Amino acid sequence: MNKTTNSGERIARISSKLTALRVEGILFFDMKNIRYLTGFTGSDGFLFIGEKGIFLLVDGRYVTQAKQEVTDCNIIEYRDKVDGIAMLISDHNMKVIGFESSALTCDTYLKLRNRLNDVTLEPLSEEINSIRAIKDIQEIDCIKKAAAIASQALQLVMNSIQPGIRERDIALILESKMKELGGETLAFETIVASGYNSALPHAKPGSKEIENGDFVVVDYGIVYQGYHSDETCTVAVGSVTQKQRETYQIVKDAHDRALDAVKDGISCREIDRIARDHIEKAGLVQYFSHGTGHGVGLEIHETPTISSKSADYLTSGMIITIEPGVYIPNLWGIRVEDMVVVERDGCEILSTVPKHLQITY
Amino acid sequence: MNKTTNSGERIARISSKLTALRVEGILFFDMKNIRYLTGFTGSDGFLFIGEKGIFLLVDGRYVTQAKQEVTDCNIIEYRDKVDGIAMLISDHNMKVIGFESSALTCDTYLKLRNRLNDVTLEPLSEEINSIRAIKDIQEIDCIKKAAAIASQALQLVMNSIQPGIRERDIALILESKMKELGGETLAFETIVASGYNSALPHAKPGSKEIENGDFVVVDYGIVYQGYHSDETCTVAVGSVTQKQRETYQIVKDAHDRALDAVKDGISCREIDRIARDHIEKAGLVQYFSHGTGHGVGLEIHETPTISSKSADYLTSGMIITIEPGVYIPNLWGIRVEDMVVVERDGCEILSTVPKHLQITY
Repeated sequence: MNKTTNSGERIARISSKLTALRVEGILFFDMKNIRYLTGFTGSDGFLFIGEKGIFLLVDGRYVTQAKQEVTDCNIIEYRDKVDGIAMLISDHNMKVIGFESSALTCDTYLKLRNRLNDVTLEPLSEEINSIRAIKDIQEIDCIKKAAAIASQALQLVMNSIQPGIRERDIALILESKMKELGGETLAFETIVASGYNSALPHAKPGSKEIENGDFVVVDYGIVYQGYHSDETCTVAVGSVTQKQRETYQIVKDAHDRALDAVKDGISCREIDRIARDHIEKAGLVQYFSHGTGHGVGLEIHETPTISSKSADYLTSGMIITIEPGVYIPNLWGIRVEDMVVVERDGCEILSTVPKHLQITY
Repeated sequence: MNKTTNSGERIARISSKLTALRVEGILFFDMKNIRYLTGFTGSDGFLFIGEKGIFLLVDGRYVTQAKQEVTDCNIIEYRDKVDGIAMLISDHNMKVIGFESSALTCDTYLKLRNRLNDVTLEPLSEEINSIRAIKDIQEIDCIKKAAAIASQALQLVMNSIQPGIRERDIALILESKMKELGGETLAFETIVASGYNSALPHAKPGSKEIENGDFVVVDYGIVYQGYHSDETCTVAVGSVTQKQRETYQIVKDAHDRALDAVKDGISCREIDRIARDHIEKAGLVQYFSHGTGHGVGLEIHETPTISSKSADYLTSGMIITIEPGVYIPNLWGIRVEDMVVVERDGCEILSTVPKHLQITY
């Protein structure tokens, strides 16, 4: 993604909201939002967008990098972050400042509160959390590329999922293949969970060996130019019982129905309900212990949230996952996940591994 | 590490502090602290240690895992974290609660504040941040093993650092080797920064090819049983100028002098001063733009901080890095880092790659 193409436009979008939000400026602390708004890829610092100017403040480690990466901001070095914030605000004599409350620790907040006792600090998080939800065309291209790399890698290593190989070795082979194909870093720690481990939705790959009759849940993704992919395949090894086959189909159908409903304007709660209802009809809803999906982008979990409590609505250009699952404690689990871009009348699926039940021999 | 061996003793150590801290209990939010105290390795949840009991609260994804991993706590499932905290505190009619303010977002804090307006929420962070600083023997063994895996991996792939290979490919080969040797996950994103990139202390490995005459800064680490390693080697490729050779020696000597001073009871500020003074005498202190080191353990950065502003003192059993560096903008940079365990009269070095100037051909 050409960062300089969009950073001015993205900053302007924030600047235009200051009056409506009744603040003189907004402090950003989330490094992904800072990257989105400025192009800066360092791991620490903060950004101020306000009437008095745009300032990116970083510590000594990042001054050179910030000057290379960022063109639309004044770059200032600080020694201590709280000092840096306090000085910026008092030097410019500002009195009402919005801040990204979801990305600030309570500790730093209380220190700032103490230092700036004549300044109103207005927590903004919902207003800000959604700024990255709708992706532009360059972003969609990056995520599409990340998804393609990941899916291709899994298909190339699928035949390694055999009795006798350890979960962690499958993860390692898959991760190496994703990087070999151009992936930057892992989108998250790869999950390879087999047999009874597959009943843990977030298991870590361990030294358990794959056995005949196992379900193997592989939840994996890679980062391309900062953008994440996310996909889950559940593969059967050697043989499946009738019960496993039926349950797989229930999860797959829940996934397909939710996917079919995705389009601009629908509520995220409705998408979750469609998946959950299908699993409920099969009497398995108590084993579907998480939400149906989430946005993906510069972070692996972004706005919107697709769950029974979500207040979000889908909009064209959002990239989301659809990932229902059923986990029978101590026996086995199944999750089927695709990543899609929301369109006016439907969606485009970005992850490309087929989701019918695959049995490796 | 056998988690069940120590979790009772560690929780008891916290419980014994409640009276002195004048709270009825403490809410923990940092997942590494929760792992340290209970053995739970999930990625979300919170822990309450109080007079009324020990409670680990997790969402639906983690109930089964928590029951498998944790023996010393009551395990409770929540749907919403703020609801879960509020109910726990009000059900037990508690009025003064300490909480881990460095690990709670301001957003959640403000929601809790709002829900629990008759409860005093006492921010505790310095009291808590140091609980993991002194490692027990099992922890030291894990970190020693992580360091040994990492150092061995680098030595096995050292001869790949050749003109023509890309930075990211060196990172990939090194990462695969560390995992092959038994490493769990990367301790952090590997840095392989060559030539002008080496002047950026936190550069990401890119598609730049290694060239003759480059310094290549390799900052890398692996996780073993949850515990991190951290080491940096700066390797010269093909040839070095007299200036590069001299500057390497200055950084190496600063590193050695700081290392020689490490022992129980010394202030972290003094360690930083020793390294910084040596670099200052060479007229290069403006290019040493970060602290001298940090604690390492379940996280890559832990208490203590070794910098000119640190208030910490070294104590036997702490594991720290010593990592001075000099970065000449747009030209090249050098960092030399070892990880050591503090002892009564000195330290034991855990990272094992020799730190004299190595030139690969």
